[in-house]
Amino acid sequence: MKELRQITVIGLGLLGGSITRSVCQSFPSVKTVGYSHRPSTRRKARQLAVANRIAETITESVAEADIVFVATPIYTFEKTFKQIAPHLPAGCIVTDVGSTKVLPHYWAEKYLPNTAYYVGSHPIAGSEQRGVEFARDDLFDRAYCILTKTKRTNAAALRTLKEFWIRLGCMVKIMQPDIHDEILANISHLPHVTAAALVNLQNNDELKLAGKGFVDTSRIASGPANIWTDTLLANRKKVAGGIDKIIAELKKLQRVIEKGDRGELERLLEAARAKRNAMINYKMKKRELIQ
Amino acid sequence: MKELRQITVIGLGLLGGSITRSVCQSFPSVKTVGYSHRPSTRRKARQLAVANRIAETITESVAEADIVFVATPIYTFEKTFKQIAPHLPAGCIVTDVGSTKVLPHYWAEKYLPNTAYYVGSHPIAGSEQRGVEFARDDLFDRAYCILTKTKRTNAAALRTLKEFWIRLGCMVKIMQPDIHDEILANISHLPHVTAAALVNLQNNDELKLAGKGFVDTSRIASGPANIWTDTLLANRKKVAGGIDKIIAELKKLQRVIEKGDRGELERLLEAARAKRNAMINYKMKKRELIQ
Repeated sequence: MKELRQITVIGLGLLGGSITRSVCQSFPSVKTVGYSHRPSTRRKARQLAVANRIAETITESVAEADIVFVATPIYTFEKTFKQIAPHLPAGCIVTDVGSTKVLPHYWAEKYLPNTAYYVGSHPIAGSEQRGVEFARDDLFDRAYCILTKTKRTNAAALRTLKEFWIRLGCMVKIMQPDIHDEILANISHLPHVTAAALVNLQNNDELKLAGKGFVDTSRIASGPANIWTDTLLANRKKVAGGIDKIIAELKKLQRVIEKGDRGELERLLEAARAKRNAMINYKMKKRELIQ
Repeated sequence: MKELRQITVIGLGLLGGSITRSVCQSFPSVKTVGYSHRPSTRRKARQLAVANRIAETITESVAEADIVFVATPIYTFEKTFKQIAPHLPAGCIVTDVGSTKVLPHYWAEKYLPNTAYYVGSHPIAGSEQRGVEFARDDLFDRAYCILTKTKRTNAAALRTLKEFWIRLGCMVKIMQPDIHDEILANISHLPHVTAAALVNLQNNDELKLAGKGFVDTSRIASGPANIWTDTLLANRKKVAGGIDKIIAELKKLQRVIEKGDRGELERLLEAARAKRNAMINYKMKKRELIQ
């Protein structure tokens, strides 16, 4: 692994702040530098000491970085890559923690210099909370982190970044950006859209009676609207395709319910139960989930 | 409140066993009798001592009951009401804990004698777990319990049952059975159908990468398929109507995502976020949820 002296995180929210906190924990000799374009966030980050240094400008934040993590909403990456491009040290690795990967690769290729190496990262961690005050040094522990590469990806940079995330506690998978976006449309973006749809059709008074099932089913709908707007728009084709898929499944269930087809309805519910339980068992075996 | 000497629970699963356990806790002088048609469940219930007595026949289980709770899948109520009808003591209150209420009222009126008083109960508590081994004496603590009544409901029986559930820790709401079924279609039955649809469209390998958001969103899909088949079929018209509503919401989101309408997408996601957060704040104020 390349010797790391400094990592820089641009964007100090739940994910960004958790990266600096985790690095302080797992790489005590590595200097952590953070930057946020909001003065109030920089102030809060300093008070909370989430990084060794909070830079006042984006330029100085990256000047001596070995790895730069962009942890802002996806549609800000274009501008951020343009801003940092002239200031990246040669050999610097640039990555991001965005929930879609095709667009970040596209912008990286368009704006970053050849002397910097871009690899996409997507740590599948987080919560419906937002803000640096929720940053934790164990957020990535036992979470999957998907790294994305194309034909142009530098192999050594990919290796360094893989070792980095493993040391932060992640299980790493490497894939092409478009495969990533297809999978995430199904397992993350579509669930978010569905949770929002499920909440939006409800009536406030009736919701008071909702049980823990509804509370859990809808939890992700409490996630930040601006971040999710970016994510869904950055993966619009695949998310729209996912919506077609869930509508087809809902109509299948609706038909058997209306027909009163007990056998087929129980079969469909049992299939879901078995599939979800297999997932939970897998995650418990991997100690990603603890009973 | 009518003086209680004995309560009987027919059906010893998570809910049934939690009723007897809670009564042992909150009404130490009341005798609890349990019955299950499965010998293995009766044996387990005795080993776990979930009730003072586990009866060997349904007939003797109700013979001296002041309140009978039917806690079996909804479509078994018809047979159960027929079986217990000739053996109910005069003045006995009969209720159930089913997730729909129109059908139970219909069967109660058809099969129960005039000397017994039926009131519908629906404690909105439970989990994806099933079986008497998960029964807890605090399952109903701070949960809503909806009681359903019609023009024929005995006012004193309703009052007794209301006080009973309040003493078990519930917040009680009283409404007509068809209003109950409409509300529950939206806040409980539709979320279950949606979770099942969301799981069924997934691919097992991709699910390994799913994060905590998906785990929570899909939790209720791990609920027992037979119980949910009964619930959905017992409320089929309203559930089918709910599916139409969520499909309409999903299509609205799909349109703005495909159009790339950032403003409208963010407005829809923010509406969901605000509505869910209002629900969570309400539930925290009521101490139904604890941060």
